[in-house]
Amino acid sequence: MSDHRDQTRADLLIGDLHPALTDPTLEAMNFLNEVAGRFPDAVSFAAGRPCEEFFELDALPRYLLTFQEYLESEKGADADQVRRMFFQYGRTKGIIHELVAEHLAVDEGIAVDPESIVVTVGCQEAMFLTLRALCADAHDVVLAVSPSYIGLTGAARLLDREVWPVRETTRGVDLAHLVEQIEAARAVGKRPRAFYLVPDFANPSGLSMDLDSRKALLSLAAEYDLLLLEDNPYGLFQAEDGTRLPTLKALDTDRRVVYLGSLAKTCFPGARIGFVVADQRVDVHGTAPVLLADQMSKIKSMLTVNTPSVAQAMAGGKLLEHGCSLVKANSGEMEVYRRNLRLLLHGLEQRFPAKGPLQVTWNRPTGGFFVVVTVPFAADEEALEYSAQYHGVLWTPMRHFYDGSGGDNQLRLSLSAVSPQQIDIGLDRLLSLVADLDTKENETR
Amino acid sequence: MSDHRDQTRADLLIGDLHPALTDPTLEAMNFLNEVAGRFPDAVSFAAGRPCEEFFELDALPRYLLTFQEYLESEKGADADQVRRMFFQYGRTKGIIHELVAEHLAVDEGIAVDPESIVVTVGCQEAMFLTLRALCADAHDVVLAVSPSYIGLTGAARLLDREVWPVRETTRGVDLAHLVEQIEAARAVGKRPRAFYLVPDFANPSGLSMDLDSRKALLSLAAEYDLLLLEDNPYGLFQAEDGTRLPTLKALDTDRRVVYLGSLAKTCFPGARIGFVVADQRVDVHGTAPVLLADQMSKIKSMLTVNTPSVAQAMAGGKLLEHGCSLVKANSGEMEVYRRNLRLLLHGLEQRFPAKGPLQVTWNRPTGGFFVVVTVPFAADEEALEYSAQYHGVLWTPMRHFYDGSGGDNQLRLSLSAVSPQQIDIGLDRLLSLVADLDTKENETR
Repeated sequence: MSDHRDQTRADLLIGDLHPALTDPTLEAMNFLNEVAGRFPDAVSFAAGRPCEEFFELDALPRYLLTFQEYLESEKGADADQVRRMFFQYGRTKGIIHELVAEHLAVDEGIAVDPESIVVTVGCQEAMFLTLRALCADAHDVVLAVSPSYIGLTGAARLLDREVWPVRETTRGVDLAHLVEQIEAARAVGKRPRAFYLVPDFANPSGLSMDLDSRKALLSLAAEYDLLLLEDNPYGLFQAEDGTRLPTLKALDTDRRVVYLGSLAKTCFPGARIGFVVADQRVDVHGTAPVLLADQMSKIKSMLTVNTPSVAQAMAGGKLLEHGCSLVKANSGEMEVYRRNLRLLLHGLEQRFPAKGPLQVTWNRPTGGFFVVVTVPFAADEEALEYSAQYHGVLWTPMRHFYDGSGGDNQLRLSLSAVSPQQIDIGLDRLLSLVADLDTKENETR
Repeated sequence: MSDHRDQTRADLLIGDLHPALTDPTLEAMNFLNEVAGRFPDAVSFAAGRPCEEFFELDALPRYLLTFQEYLESEKGADADQVRRMFFQYGRTKGIIHELVAEHLAVDEGIAVDPESIVVTVGCQEAMFLTLRALCADAHDVVLAVSPSYIGLTGAARLLDREVWPVRETTRGVDLAHLVEQIEAARAVGKRPRAFYLVPDFANPSGLSMDLDSRKALLSLAAEYDLLLLEDNPYGLFQAEDGTRLPTLKALDTDRRVVYLGSLAKTCFPGARIGFVVADQRVDVHGTAPVLLADQMSKIKSMLTVNTPSVAQAMAGGKLLEHGCSLVKANSGEMEVYRRNLRLLLHGLEQRFPAKGPLQVTWNRPTGGFFVVVTVPFAADEEALEYSAQYHGVLWTPMRHFYDGSGGDNQLRLSLSAVSPQQIDIGLDRLLSLVADLDTKENETR
């Protein structure tokens, strides 16, 4: 044995590991998790998790039983087949694909062949499968709305693929900038494969695209031969009554949209059920075309093999209990989010009046989980740490959602997992933080 | 709208997708799944799935309850915390890490800090995280025993990383060839990062390393500064009584081994629970070293976010019911596999006597799920299709487990999911297949 313990031991240098591990995207995710853990008593507007008041432990075995009865009565499974479905390895594309297709028909007016659905371990795996399938090599790049959900950027980082940002406007996506970026990418020999966006109540901006913009985007995608990756975790959570806008996939007549779905907010996150609808046809050397979903399934077989059947069964049970309508299943949750959005916007108005001394503004989403606030200081990790320690309130720096520059004076407030009392206290604390940092800014000037 | 429907539609060419999708590894997996589906009445020696006779639906809600009681009594969780653990997003590294550590201590004599464990969606995700963390760029290659588990090769393909084969011997790994390959890789500017193997009852060969070889391998890994990726899904299933051999991780004093664990065969596949023990220290630019497990956790946050908590709870409940001993939990299963291995080896001897007309030989593993048979014909996909259609018996071409050439006249028989009657009938059918193809071979000569 050598005396130089570090030389005999198989220890490692960070620089020898995959570069994603030191990428700001993955570091940011880590920082946010860590800071929330260190300040458990702070009011948290940081986490984009669903409200917890409707979780009931008794539902879990009931969901299993409901799904079992469905297998027996609807699918004609005998006792051995049912046990095998729950316990054994399963179909790579999933076992609740028909129920997911029914949900899409009932809640979204989207008609898809269940065979074009891959049930995934959360929407995150769906994104990963999609990026891996579509990006053949380093010439292939993905475009994404900016600011963007951090999981999309992170998945691209794991695959060593570039994400080119496309600006957001208050009506959704800046289509002129999208065209610019497509052309700029092509001009340097890159192939833009797809454009990722959240058309409804986006994370992090809370904004939605209007109907004309959706149609214009679909036309533009056809013109430039680009796929659209539509991520829709919050679409159900419209704050006002009335008809929701159609998703891009509902408007898609040309298989132009790959639809990324999440049941984390509409069933429950602990099941980790997401899915992707990939009904595009792939020509395999002139033989009969196959579904893009089947190609993604081959990737999934080398990533997670299949989505845990017991978790699928629970999500399936919940779907079945509500006729596959997640709108119906979430009537209570929708009330909570509507109330919270109202309280949050009203609370901001009360504390930061337009003609008041503090330069604070915010957007006014019509649904979803998030509101973006612009503040008169750099809303960075240092400010968040200070906010947590001295003012007891957590939020997310918008900076984290930009893959380049942007969002320096903005923070994201999440309204989904707070009570009315917490909103009240949390906004009081945000006010004291802003006043505190505003004073400091003025002093240093 | 154009008349050229295929031009307006967003359909795709396979050549534009990721090259892994046309790789023989992923194609093979697909073929095997598909052929098994087409011949449901064939006796299948193909699937490496656990036996099903101990699956009972009533166990699932009981496991949930057992895990709930553990959270309450052992972890001091209150009702809100318990509900949150089951329903909400959870700890990226998992919630049953302490139970897994206890299992490793009780069943394997492996002492590890639970913090060095990442609970994954099956062992497949553990492999993927490991390869992604360790391989910084295309200069980094992985060595793997050949023939090798197809999931390792597949994961490397998804990451565009090379796998260099290392020959197997009847005592395990050909250590001289391992050294040759390390040196050959370094000579062409590659960096061999790790060597993947299954020391106990390997998939597909069924072979195990003896104790001296294990120790020699550890020394060699230290000498050449290589990590060992030890995959151990079958180690518990020793056919003979007596003490099992220590795993590499149990012998590892220098954090030289990354241990890949699967509960698919020892709990149940439908939970999709695997794990990786990564206790290596990573030096992050001179600050306090962090665990490799925490780096892998950052990758997991961009892949599946966390392993479904409800699935972890079920595996956790099963562990708790048996004092975290999977040896105890699998006493019935072990009897089945022992009996089947005995019947299979005996059945082969009866049908293919040493001095008989048919040139058929096989190895004699001392445990696990697999036996490898050498036959007097090319055991390829065509032969398998023929076998399924005309003789009603399924097996796996060994060819599929070689990333280069090899295994052309060999097939893998899996004994884990067949009854004694099926073994008998299946071997009769295998005999008739061999006789049939042997005659044909002779006729064409």
